[in-house]
Amino acid sequence: MSHKIKVGDNYEYEFSFTQEDVEAFARLSGDNNPVHLDPEFASKTIFKQPIIHGFLSASVFSKVLGTDFPGHGCIYLKQSMDFLRPMYVNLKYKAKFTVEEINEARHQAIIKTIVLDLEKCKTTISGSATVMHKERL
Amino acid sequence: MSHKIKVGDNYEYEFSFTQEDVEAFARLSGDNNPVHLDPEFASKTIFKQPIIHGFLSASVFSKVLGTDFPGHGCIYLKQSMDFLRPMYVNLKYKAKFTVEEINEARHQAIIKTIVLDLEKCKTTISGSATVMHKERL
Repeated sequence: MSHKIKVGDNYEYEFSFTQEDVEAFARLSGDNNPVHLDPEFASKTIFKQPIIHGFLSASVFSKVLGTDFPGHGCIYLKQSMDFLRPMYVNLKYKAKFTVEEINEARHQAIIKTIVLDLEKCKTTISGSATVMHKERL
Repeated sequence: MSHKIKVGDNYEYEFSFTQEDVEAFARLSGDNNPVHLDPEFASKTIFKQPIIHGFLSASVFSKVLGTDFPGHGCIYLKQSMDFLRPMYVNLKYKAKFTVEEINEARHQAIIKTIVLDLEKCKTTISGSATVMHKERL
């Protein structure tokens, strides 16, 4: 895609993570909080079972912005994330992106970024990204 | 550490990432934006060489909050990140955490989170985390 992105444009992407992904992220980041890795520990929390790291789940924003919308060459300036509900492995989620503002002179956009639990139709992560792309913005 | 955290408490943690870490994060997240992976592509950008994914660099916040300060059992509620300057592999960075507000009734804290480039003494990522910890907050 090389056409210009405009206010109101949107993009959707379905994804899921496995427990192996969670373990790989724990090794990579060093975040071995047992709420992500230890079913026995997690069973005693309000989540009942291990949850995906928020940073791993929200990395779908980096993936889509950096490779699809606006795509390769995208420079990440800001991201906010409200982790509203727990996310679990092997469930299907959908990331939704809506362009809210564009500054053409700076080649920048503010894009609303959310993740939806497809089973319960509830938002699990809500946030906003600011990105720069020389060709598409 | 099991004592209560209070307003003004702070924590520091030094870290660095390798190009192998960047490649592992690209595989895990699916973010294969060439600005992170392709020296030829990166040489034509303002960064001159491949930069670390913002989400990988900022995962140090997840690591420290989830394992050290406040530590295991910490629940991530919010994180904002302003990616102010590029970050490169094999350089030393320091993450700094300062407790700004505590809500004891809710066991929640707002913690200022920044990353410093130790060579240039400049902030590379600036942000704020909101976390919950039943014992320490």
